[in-house]
Amino acid sequence: MEECRRGRVYIVGAGPGDPELITVKGLRLIQQADVIVYDRLVAKELLNRARPGAELIYAGKKPGAHTMTQEEINKLLLEKACEGKTVVRLHGGDPYVFGRGEEECIYLRDHGVECEVVPGLTSAIAGAAYAGIPVTSRGIASSFAVATGREAPNKDRKMVHYGRIMKSVDTLVVVMGVGNLENIVKEMVEEGIDPDLPVAIVEKATTPEQRVVTGKLRDIVEKAREAGVQPPALIIFGRTVELRDRLWRLS
Amino acid sequence: MEECRRGRVYIVGAGPGDPELITVKGLRLIQQADVIVYDRLVAKELLNRARPGAELIYAGKKPGAHTMTQEEINKLLLEKACEGKTVVRLHGGDPYVFGRGEEECIYLRDHGVECEVVPGLTSAIAGAAYAGIPVTSRGIASSFAVATGREAPNKDRKMVHYGRIMKSVDTLVVVMGVGNLENIVKEMVEEGIDPDLPVAIVEKATTPEQRVVTGKLRDIVEKAREAGVQPPALIIFGRTVELRDRLWRLS
Repeated sequence: MEECRRGRVYIVGAGPGDPELITVKGLRLIQQADVIVYDRLVAKELLNRARPGAELIYAGKKPGAHTMTQEEINKLLLEKACEGKTVVRLHGGDPYVFGRGEEECIYLRDHGVECEVVPGLTSAIAGAAYAGIPVTSRGIASSFAVATGREAPNKDRKMVHYGRIMKSVDTLVVVMGVGNLENIVKEMVEEGIDPDLPVAIVEKATTPEQRVVTGKLRDIVEKAREAGVQPPALIIFGRTVELRDRLWRLS
Repeated sequence: MEECRRGRVYIVGAGPGDPELITVKGLRLIQQADVIVYDRLVAKELLNRARPGAELIYAGKKPGAHTMTQEEINKLLLEKACEGKTVVRLHGGDPYVFGRGEEECIYLRDHGVECEVVPGLTSAIAGAAYAGIPVTSRGIASSFAVATGREAPNKDRKMVHYGRIMKSVDTLVVVMGVGNLENIVKEMVEEGIDPDLPVAIVEKATTPEQRVVTGKLRDIVEKAREAGVQPPALIIFGRTVELRDRLWRLS
């Protein structure tokens, strides 16, 4: 266990896709790490910044096809830390925004290993910005919410009510929701949300393949189908979507 | 106007306080800029990374005591761009999360100057993480909201209803809300929010002076008063506040 105490794990957010959107701290830790355990959506350019001889381990995480289970990832991080290594656990986006980074950190600390968290830009905000959509804007949006589009399958009760959220905030960003778009929109309509509410879908946000589909609540399902939208994508509901034509955007 | 087209303005987020939490892209642009127009809450270490001879202009932005008005800032950015300069407009946090970066970008584009936005970590998420509080957590929080604690004074209608938001999401982070804490809590109680809801206040998040005060909805006003909490601070409402004892934190 003495070895475990010498090891250290950094739970690092890689940001939304553009490799230059990682933090200076996150990049420094990548360059110093002995071991990097990384997710599917992490930019390859970041892995290329690891020092020669660093061990790179792919942890997967694709919806419905996890290469490693969360428990396996936890154990791997602990094992490497107990070899006295400096470990970077590299998440797409932010480790604490639907990343389960907090589970990893709790597991490690429960086993006597210190962890440290380095936040990353979440695509929910930065991906919207790259699409020309601010989540807030004076006089238009004074609050925003972020929700997952697919709830944990083992939940015994529904935790996310998209219609209710949309009634209480000005902007709602749903991540990992493309496969569930029709249900989300249906819930909103049934809750009485204006069918003319502007909606945008941003596919592969902040990457060279970024693509944006816009519409209204009434027609976004059809437009997404026509465009053949695929994950990863974020869905943005709210009036600031209309500012897009007046703002800088990647696509 | 030919000169204006040669100039370029980057609307950059400096992040929540820790200078290493700026993005790699943001730091690169600081190092390349001819002119940097910066806010009060931007880390001085970042300004020290400007190239020799770069012009540094303080734009202020303190609640109730703007050193420059937004209109003055907009005009300054335009003027410098029209001198053919590369300008970085450096915001604390994220330019599009209550930063009015979108107003600056719209103004510039309306006057024929291109702008580009580089998101920064918002203290609402990253500051919470540095206090050991994840805004989401599997089975505990599947959604979160961020709201301003002080609405634009010239608004003719109330846009933020804290109680209603708290009823629809699992975690709510209020930024710039310390001066309005008592009203926010009162609204929540009147809306029927559980008085035992965990609450944390994070002062000067991610800086060496970070301080955290925790309590419940029923006693947070008193605890904040006793502790003499001062802005800048964020207020976090929700059950993930209780994970703090099991997670890494700066203070």
